[in-house]
Amino acid sequence: MAPVAVRLELWDRSSPYDASGPPVGDLVVHDRRTLLGLAVNPDLWFGESYMAGRLDVRGALEPVVEALSRLSPLSPSWRARIGRALVIPNTLRAARDNVHHHYDLGNHFYQQWLDRELVYTCAYFERPEMSLDEAQQAKLDLICRKLQLRPGDTVVEAGCGWGALALFMAQHYGVRVKAFNVSREQLAFARERAAREGLAGRVEFVDDDYRNVRGTFDVFVSIGMLEHVGLPHLHTFADVLRRCLRRDGRGLLHFISRDAPCPLNPWIRRRIFPGAYTPTLAEVTTRVLTPAGMSVVDVENLRLHYARTLELWAARYEAAKDSVRSTYGDQFARAWELYLAGSQAAFATGWMQLFQVIFTPRESAPPFWTRAEIFSRPESTE
Amino acid sequence: MAPVAVRLELWDRSSPYDASGPPVGDLVVHDRRTLLGLAVNPDLWFGESYMAGRLDVRGALEPVVEALSRLSPLSPSWRARIGRALVIPNTLRAARDNVHHHYDLGNHFYQQWLDRELVYTCAYFERPEMSLDEAQQAKLDLICRKLQLRPGDTVVEAGCGWGALALFMAQHYGVRVKAFNVSREQLAFARERAAREGLAGRVEFVDDDYRNVRGTFDVFVSIGMLEHVGLPHLHTFADVLRRCLRRDGRGLLHFISRDAPCPLNPWIRRRIFPGAYTPTLAEVTTRVLTPAGMSVVDVENLRLHYARTLELWAARYEAAKDSVRSTYGDQFARAWELYLAGSQAAFATGWMQLFQVIFTPRESAPPFWTRAEIFSRPESTE
Repeated sequence: MAPVAVRLELWDRSSPYDASGPPVGDLVVHDRRTLLGLAVNPDLWFGESYMAGRLDVRGALEPVVEALSRLSPLSPSWRARIGRALVIPNTLRAARDNVHHHYDLGNHFYQQWLDRELVYTCAYFERPEMSLDEAQQAKLDLICRKLQLRPGDTVVEAGCGWGALALFMAQHYGVRVKAFNVSREQLAFARERAAREGLAGRVEFVDDDYRNVRGTFDVFVSIGMLEHVGLPHLHTFADVLRRCLRRDGRGLLHFISRDAPCPLNPWIRRRIFPGAYTPTLAEVTTRVLTPAGMSVVDVENLRLHYARTLELWAARYEAAKDSVRSTYGDQFARAWELYLAGSQAAFATGWMQLFQVIFTPRESAPPFWTRAEIFSRPESTE
Repeated sequence: MAPVAVRLELWDRSSPYDASGPPVGDLVVHDRRTLLGLAVNPDLWFGESYMAGRLDVRGALEPVVEALSRLSPLSPSWRARIGRALVIPNTLRAARDNVHHHYDLGNHFYQQWLDRELVYTCAYFERPEMSLDEAQQAKLDLICRKLQLRPGDTVVEAGCGWGALALFMAQHYGVRVKAFNVSREQLAFARERAAREGLAGRVEFVDDDYRNVRGTFDVFVSIGMLEHVGLPHLHTFADVLRRCLRRDGRGLLHFISRDAPCPLNPWIRRRIFPGAYTPTLAEVTTRVLTPAGMSVVDVENLRLHYARTLELWAARYEAAKDSVRSTYGDQFARAWELYLAGSQAAFATGWMQLFQVIFTPRESAPPFWTRAEIFSRPESTE
């Protein structure tokens, strides 16, 4: 466990202990109850308190969150030092849920800090200096090449967000896509884009749960949705996969993952992603791919690309924060700031992983002989 | 389950059923007891009988083995048809073990059908038309690039065979290697090569079990050894990995795998690889990498490259079979012929997988930003 390079400052300007080495920032705790919460349940309480303005960070937020994340599980020294001045109660009264959840927020909120096509998943910085817009386009193209899409292929997408991937595949690779989503606001946006770009005949946006996918397809793709399925329902995802992928097909899952099974940070689960669970690679193979009769072809860990994506999102969010605060209030604005900084820290440190997994039905050949085929772009079909 | 495209012919020239569609070959069973064994325990008995010359295949061996492999678990129609003429006994008397095992065979045996450097694992056919020698060299180089070896790195290799990888790394990438093996004949060969090629100062071949590795290294690599560790001992492998890889290091495991946990074919286990177990990817992550504090960076499935490798091995073996028969006897020669054909079928059909897994200690950065770095060769240090 690395030493904690964060200076702690209390409401009376006292500092119960100094950072070991030069601090990356100051954690300023404004009241006794907040300090208590941090001692008892830091994973939850840090977020709750930051949101409520009961603690602040002096300096950049992300390095402090990153340093603090190394305290989980809470280090004995931190706990002991804080504990000295505290009486720990038997129960912790949690604050009530009072912020909007992820998908009730409207397109305008996301348009302020995502890329121009609203791709709300890890980008691929083919060159490190790429802009966010370029890196999201590079990610869409990488997925198409990993799937070796060919003109005329039929593709089903489980969870399509604002439709960027579905439209990209149809436009650049000549495939037909059926894309499922249950968010009406996202679907309206996606359908409007499809009509405007003349792709409505090749991309069907379906207002339904992925569990209701019918028919069979050459390609199955799901980007950033598996995390929302939840561990007890992964077998349902497997059933859909088995049912709707042709025996000579191929597919790709892109999901946030952990090295070992672990519940999501409780504050993130409460405030940002209710019901979410980030499965391990082993959980995905044993609960989804193997029961669906699929073999793993290729796995790529893009966690540092997600850290970079989140860094760029956070910078754009920072620029939009006043506008967010005036629309949604200060608690909400602080919650999202913390969520972006905390996620960046989680991917930067290896606390979270981002996997892209290519798979095929057991007896079907992998879609390429070597990965060199992923790196050579086919002729455009535009 | 695909229909069985094999014609069955009995000792009296009768054929109890015809192949569905044009047969890929004839399976000729010479006596009643063999047919009985096939009905009761085909996975074991096919190999035993083939070895003993109590059944033969008319036509090429591999397609027949591949077709028959689809019968496992035994299809009801096959079982019913064979069963008609048989009384099934309660016990099956297994034949006694009477062939040499894998690593008692001497270098000369392998020199007759492996590549010139005796690389006895899956090759990498960077271009499909590569020769076996070229593809084995391409595999060695691929591993070095995946590990992003740099001059001066220290490397530990757990299970080094005849030393080809260790010597390649030292010669082409300027690293220092400590390579462990318990086969004295292989070690003598490797040391002789090291001395002849002037690499003895940079590669130490250690006559010891990998469990006795001491010290820490920048790089951990193990090619085709994990299958011999056995499921109950994977935690020991994890202990070694945790202990001997530096926290800023990286490593690679190359191993035969299965989609779902499954014991090795009983005949292969009895005759070819006693004690072996081919772990699933999930078993490797949950029993080796996660307990050792490692994160998965990259996984590549090379099963079709192993099918091609085995095809070339089998062709070379076929040319050497008379010599093998005169040294080791007919049963031995037939056993190895069947093992090579059966393995080729297993990898061709997806019954077995071949994974290369790159990993790093949890908080260490992946060794490359994108895979493009794997594809660009560094300057040679020769």
